[in-house]
Amino acid sequence: MKDESKPILLAHGGGGRLTAELVDRMILPKFRNDTLSKLTDAAQLELESTSVSFTTDSFVVQPLEFPGGDIGKLAVCGTVNDLVVSGTRPVALSLGLIIEEGFDQNRLDTILASAAEAARQANVSIVAGDTKVVEKGAADGLFINTSGIGVRMKGANVGFDRIKPGDGILINGTLGDHGMTIMSLRKGIQFDSPIQSDCAVLSDLIGRLVDRLGEQIHFMRDPTRGGLAATLNEIVTATGLDLLIEETALPIQPTVQAAADMLGFDLLNIANEGKVVAVVAPDAVDRAMKIFRDHSLGRQAACVGRVNPRTEGAPNGLVEMVTRIGGRRIVQMPYGRDLPRIC
Amino acid sequence: MKDESKPILLAHGGGGRLTAELVDRMILPKFRNDTLSKLTDAAQLELESTSVSFTTDSFVVQPLEFPGGDIGKLAVCGTVNDLVVSGTRPVALSLGLIIEEGFDQNRLDTILASAAEAARQANVSIVAGDTKVVEKGAADGLFINTSGIGVRMKGANVGFDRIKPGDGILINGTLGDHGMTIMSLRKGIQFDSPIQSDCAVLSDLIGRLVDRLGEQIHFMRDPTRGGLAATLNEIVTATGLDLLIEETALPIQPTVQAAADMLGFDLLNIANEGKVVAVVAPDAVDRAMKIFRDHSLGRQAACVGRVNPRTEGAPNGLVEMVTRIGGRRIVQMPYGRDLPRIC
Repeated sequence: MKDESKPILLAHGGGGRLTAELVDRMILPKFRNDTLSKLTDAAQLELESTSVSFTTDSFVVQPLEFPGGDIGKLAVCGTVNDLVVSGTRPVALSLGLIIEEGFDQNRLDTILASAAEAARQANVSIVAGDTKVVEKGAADGLFINTSGIGVRMKGANVGFDRIKPGDGILINGTLGDHGMTIMSLRKGIQFDSPIQSDCAVLSDLIGRLVDRLGEQIHFMRDPTRGGLAATLNEIVTATGLDLLIEETALPIQPTVQAAADMLGFDLLNIANEGKVVAVVAPDAVDRAMKIFRDHSLGRQAACVGRVNPRTEGAPNGLVEMVTRIGGRRIVQMPYGRDLPRIC
Repeated sequence: MKDESKPILLAHGGGGRLTAELVDRMILPKFRNDTLSKLTDAAQLELESTSVSFTTDSFVVQPLEFPGGDIGKLAVCGTVNDLVVSGTRPVALSLGLIIEEGFDQNRLDTILASAAEAARQANVSIVAGDTKVVEKGAADGLFINTSGIGVRMKGANVGFDRIKPGDGILINGTLGDHGMTIMSLRKGIQFDSPIQSDCAVLSDLIGRLVDRLGEQIHFMRDPTRGGLAATLNEIVTATGLDLLIEETALPIQPTVQAAADMLGFDLLNIANEGKVVAVVAPDAVDRAMKIFRDHSLGRQAACVGRVNPRTEGAPNGLVEMVTRIGGRRIVQMPYGRDLPRIC
């Protein structure tokens, strides 16, 4: 029956028989777990700890499918990664769908399957869900919200307040792959060596890092919207410290750089969806780099800079970059206009 | 500055400077709490228990403002109520906004203020949030997702498996007020005595019920989309038992009935947003009724029916209603087509 195109109807979101059918046929089989199958108003969970993390993210990426993933995979990766960079082991996710009337059911099926596959990779259950349908023209195909809860990873102790002068700033791979994939697709640009989104769950990589280096990992964040520039500026705003990065140390794929040049983007501002920025104690940098590079998601990891003391007399901290030609430039917080609907 | 109309820009959702400004100016002051203010990737919570409930709901109601509430209040009430009917005390909510470019900032401000007010009434903190902006025409004004976590209320023990023949079926007030308010508004119908949504947080009412009657409360659900008919049919599907309700016992406001008659709706199928259906042990029905009626949200509470044993030989349970004229009719699961975007 896969060939037959069947549209989603308004009634699929009405909370009646058709909603129940959609949930039974398309949603439960993919995400099957005892908690979700009970279809109670709220999922009941028994956690290992009372220290819980909680996060939410809505996904409005356009186009919905792209090389390296789709909105379903992205929605799971995004929320899983928000949890793991907080030193949290993801336990449960929720999945809220807002579907435009007329959306193809087979297409929805494929997107949900890739959400389920990402959840399997992250070893997390989708335990709660909600489906709304809005009339044609009232939404752009499909929006997904994922929220997630998790419990503290043993040994994890990360936070802005743990960042210290001398710490190394690491990233597990190349910059801007997700954002430039989406933008190239939207602008209809093709490359000889195609680029693809880095969209990936970071649970395993970060689990290893925390397991082996524990408190020597001072801070982690996933540089999504606003890219590395936003993450570094958030650190500076929160800590008042200065950061110095080296342009030559930034891992960048040549094709992605070419796309950025062609479209007029600075890769520092471009969203990543499978990357973590880790701020690491000085004597743990080499070990962290080895842990990254030994992992399939960290082969192109790099130490891109370090944390410096606050500049005396300066009102705020600054992110500075030593450029390719040896000069220095300030890396500003991006304004935010460049890349709508990148995630 | 309240008079000046300022539109939301795409850049407000870009994750850069403008996003930070929006969050700092409009969101943090309303929901201020230590957890949210840290703006970490995931909120850190210390719970009282490891038994946790988790739920999610997206809100796409149209129009966004209506007599008795708006989408902000509705989004908080909906998720709080999903938690409390599960016998859970809400602890934390997340708030995910999908905003259409050009949406008026003052209007957003008012909607967020009413979400904050509902959260205060429910004694729950909004600890995590996300803001996305999509271009004009890609969404219908504003969609809100709220997810929530909570811990088990002391003494609560509710679930489909606890429903027994002989139990009473109670509801805390009139049917269909929310749905008919929205539909009347959309159809441009006005009444001499205006109707308004029943949108309300049920934390206090249900807290009292569970506190005083404990395990004698066997099951609770909020009859939102699909109305009382959907809730009763869900019980029948899950338990295989028969339910019998009395039409004359159903609490209904005459104006709401008039609206339903005029528009051709069956109030059994219409969404409520401040109602709970409670299935209660036979000898606790009177006390439950008193607890309801002593509360401002339960003045018009009624015992509308009872749970019967499974009919011998029948493949499934049934919901039946003794009609006003003494006949019996089957109350079916609504198909779902009647009321798009009611919540």
